[in-house]
Amino acid sequence: MKGCEWCNLSEEDKKYLLSDTEYWTVYLADEQDYIGRCIIILKRHCGSLPELTDDEWMELFLLIKKYEKCIKTVFDAELCNWSCLMNNFYKSPEPCPHIHIHVRPRYKKPVVINGNTYLDNHFGHHYSSGETEQMCSKEDIQTIYGLMKKWLNS
Amino acid sequence: MKGCEWCNLSEEDKKYLLSDTEYWTVYLADEQDYIGRCIIILKRHCGSLPELTDDEWMELFLLIKKYEKCIKTVFDAELCNWSCLMNNFYKSPEPCPHIHIHVRPRYKKPVVINGNTYLDNHFGHHYSSGETEQMCSKEDIQTIYGLMKKWLNS
Repeated sequence: MKGCEWCNLSEEDKKYLLSDTEYWTVYLADEQDYIGRCIIILKRHCGSLPELTDDEWMELFLLIKKYEKCIKTVFDAELCNWSCLMNNFYKSPEPCPHIHIHVRPRYKKPVVINGNTYLDNHFGHHYSSGETEQMCSKEDIQTIYGLMKKWLNS
Repeated sequence: MKGCEWCNLSEEDKKYLLSDTEYWTVYLADEQDYIGRCIIILKRHCGSLPELTDDEWMELFLLIKKYEKCIKTVFDAELCNWSCLMNNFYKSPEPCPHIHIHVRPRYKKPVVINGNTYLDNHFGHHYSSGETEQMCSKEDIQTIYGLMKKWLNS
């Protein structure tokens, strides 16, 4: 849809593409406040979960299974927090929501990437939805992306 | 499962039952920080989304469609925030998570229940996950429950 930035992602936005299936694409999030954080985006413009087709809903389930396994295997996450919120779209006087699912892996143990240690300081509690507490370097994001991509392709 | 409080809800816990389907039950949440807030609970003990069966996943989709329609029709919500988190279980040294989905309706306009006005002060932003900001009286919760139950049964 014209004017929807989620329908018209730039090449820069697409740089961390992890999966491209029949109905969905999955990207590693730029914000790695939770290591392995991803966004699952519907390929067509659609504004709410009830408007998904049965086939889209079933393929989403396959992706949930695949990504939770990937994240637990590669980074030893304890669980994943799944959410479909869409609040930001409603800041606009004419909201044009586009379905996407947030995947936030949660960690009991520290995750070490290139010698840098990342802690989930709120483990056992709601994820932090405010400011990013720890910056992840571009090099570390690239490593996270490479590790996930390798697992997904194996 | 023995020891799982979600498998062994008390009669008090069950007082706001809205739906009882083949695989799920839905309750109005005690905490009505977002008017019409509900919890969808799997009837069997199961710890994560990937472990759901296809039939459970498909029935969840039917409930998402039904409840989003109910909440939009009865209270004029703009959207619903859907999440599957399960963080609290992981405070325990031996976590025993039990799948449940949070439904938080979001409101652009005030909702009036029995003459009391409820505002969604963070509309267009992430839901508040901290302290409840506005108390909802038992009478108003009962009214919310009655209105939803009536729509669901009609």
